[in-house]
Amino acid sequence: MSFKFSVHTQDSITSARTGELTLPHGTVKTPVFMPVGTLGTVKATSPEELENIGFDIILGNTYHLYLRPGDELIKKAGGLHSFINWDRNMLTDSGGFQVMSLQQFRKITEEGIGFQSHIDGSSHFFSPERVMEIEHNLGADIIMVLDECAPHPCTKEYAKESADMSLRWAERCNIKHEQLGGEQSIFGIVQGSIFDDLREENAKELISIDFPGYAIGGLAVGENKEDMLRIVNLMDRVLPKEKPRYLMGVGTPLDLLENIERGVDMFDCVMPTRHARNGQAFTRDGRLTVRNGKYKEDFRPIQDDCNCYACRNFSRAYIRHLINVKEILGVRLTTLHNLTFYNTLIKEIREAINSGVFSQYKSNFIERYTRSDDVQYI
Amino acid sequence: MSFKFSVHTQDSITSARTGELTLPHGTVKTPVFMPVGTLGTVKATSPEELENIGFDIILGNTYHLYLRPGDELIKKAGGLHSFINWDRNMLTDSGGFQVMSLQQFRKITEEGIGFQSHIDGSSHFFSPERVMEIEHNLGADIIMVLDECAPHPCTKEYAKESADMSLRWAERCNIKHEQLGGEQSIFGIVQGSIFDDLREENAKELISIDFPGYAIGGLAVGENKEDMLRIVNLMDRVLPKEKPRYLMGVGTPLDLLENIERGVDMFDCVMPTRHARNGQAFTRDGRLTVRNGKYKEDFRPIQDDCNCYACRNFSRAYIRHLINVKEILGVRLTTLHNLTFYNTLIKEIREAINSGVFSQYKSNFIERYTRSDDVQYI
Repeated sequence: MSFKFSVHTQDSITSARTGELTLPHGTVKTPVFMPVGTLGTVKATSPEELENIGFDIILGNTYHLYLRPGDELIKKAGGLHSFINWDRNMLTDSGGFQVMSLQQFRKITEEGIGFQSHIDGSSHFFSPERVMEIEHNLGADIIMVLDECAPHPCTKEYAKESADMSLRWAERCNIKHEQLGGEQSIFGIVQGSIFDDLREENAKELISIDFPGYAIGGLAVGENKEDMLRIVNLMDRVLPKEKPRYLMGVGTPLDLLENIERGVDMFDCVMPTRHARNGQAFTRDGRLTVRNGKYKEDFRPIQDDCNCYACRNFSRAYIRHLINVKEILGVRLTTLHNLTFYNTLIKEIREAINSGVFSQYKSNFIERYTRSDDVQYI
Repeated sequence: MSFKFSVHTQDSITSARTGELTLPHGTVKTPVFMPVGTLGTVKATSPEELENIGFDIILGNTYHLYLRPGDELIKKAGGLHSFINWDRNMLTDSGGFQVMSLQQFRKITEEGIGFQSHIDGSSHFFSPERVMEIEHNLGADIIMVLDECAPHPCTKEYAKESADMSLRWAERCNIKHEQLGGEQSIFGIVQGSIFDDLREENAKELISIDFPGYAIGGLAVGENKEDMLRIVNLMDRVLPKEKPRYLMGVGTPLDLLENIERGVDMFDCVMPTRHARNGQAFTRDGRLTVRNGKYKEDFRPIQDDCNCYACRNFSRAYIRHLINVKEILGVRLTTLHNLTFYNTLIKEIREAINSGVFSQYKSNFIERYTRSDDVQYI
């Protein structure tokens, strides 16, 4: 295992902190936002563009890559890094979250999850051990344990049984992972829905397995924002300070700020890329629906002070036109902008923490982000 | 008018020649292949990528840009170059070809073409004078006269009436263009279907108007290849040697070679970009259907000696995967490759002409391109 995490600066007022992850494909400054490359590509971008924006780690989705093109093929290609030509770090999820969303087409037992492919209905089975084999074939720098992401809402009884089983799966994953060897690191995932005692119990058991990092799973699945923040606060108290915390599937710019304040180091979310494909661009003044008629003759860039390829070269009017006529360049430019926005935000947050002005940065950002009537701020 | 054309090297055996066009946005070496940017973007590419490949001139389609986003908007943006952020040369067609393809939804009279938008069915009218206004609003470096592209097959009587009317439209376009002034140059378009005497008569009349360049229109519309090549041979004898000849909407790599041999200097075609979107890549060994199962574990680049971003960084297996799962990067990479292939081909042809070895280059290229059983060579 090639893994190191060190905290650089701890904010004096909040739990926010900066740090550095050392992984097989280089170092990653935290807090970090990781773009999602579901099928071996961060949608609409090239690896060169992601490097130019400054990302040091991206995600791959095990469920999707297992189905297409298949982990065996990727192994033959020399692993995911080589297959997709990305020589910085990668993280793969376990596929558990995707399989859970298949609803009628999966069956969960202690042994694992049986499911039917959303592509062709073919039958498959993910046990913790099988998922480890797949994630080892993919070869990401950080891999995640197989877990059950309990639906929201669910009863406390369901949540407890589910979290307990996820814990046993985490143990099985860890054993299999160690047998398989290699340079990859494995993170545990805390479950327990929105129930504080279940979360605390689950986290403590996971900690006793001694993973190099811990994810907070099962959030951003429809619960209230207050529940999310309370659970993250709790995790901040329970999880070891010297290990990285990863809040899975989160979130909006405001989510990033709130959860960094609560001690989270790592995030991933499809929001910047998905919103781009829907013609929505993030700006310091909120989220702008580029295809709206009011931007028809707006020859300003999406955001004045943005240094991305889209903002340096193209107007809202042009990007709006491209999106309206469904030209690929429209999605490309909006995606580049949104990813640049997220990476700039997280970079500025790191600088604010290092300079001891995180809380001030946060309130300034939110004040401007939520002020305009013209845009959405979620 | 800012326009100069000079022939550099005339092949001693064939009519092939190299030359240089001087236009408001720089010089263009001929023979030249111009990628098609229908709606203000060469599909799936950025202007930066087109510059990096080495294109010095691209097309825009007047019909499409007139409808969306509208030529008035583009004029407000400072013209098409500014709107799409392309500071090299552009050429706009007249919209005649697109309007003709609307079939039931257009009516041609001496005055011009009435038609209904393919977007919303709204009614519009393109007279020669109106088209000049639109092309002046767009502001391309070379603009084309409005013509009727006669359908194939058509009677000789229809072809004559149509070509005669196109000639009168060309005169009206030229007058309006001179009234409007500016730095743009206007090309005439020879019509006359596949009838030699009509073509010759039409060309001679156009020449008497004295355009700075001449296009050969109404080909690549379903006629036999022999008819196309015979008409182009005829045009080579009739059109003035000291002016550029532009064969509109052509074509395959072999079409380029055959028609350069017959004295053509300029080409445009959607083939490299459209085939890319269908998962087809051009190689020196023919056209390769990347999504085919046989490339599933083929970790070679699309073409070994290609210097494009796709071939330098990615395998057939990865690009096949991207195309199969409909990821935008798949289309992007295949488009970059195909455009690089076309630009490399035409650059090599220029070098061969300059070195006096065009015929040898042509036969070597065709021999290899059509040899493999594995691919298509059309």
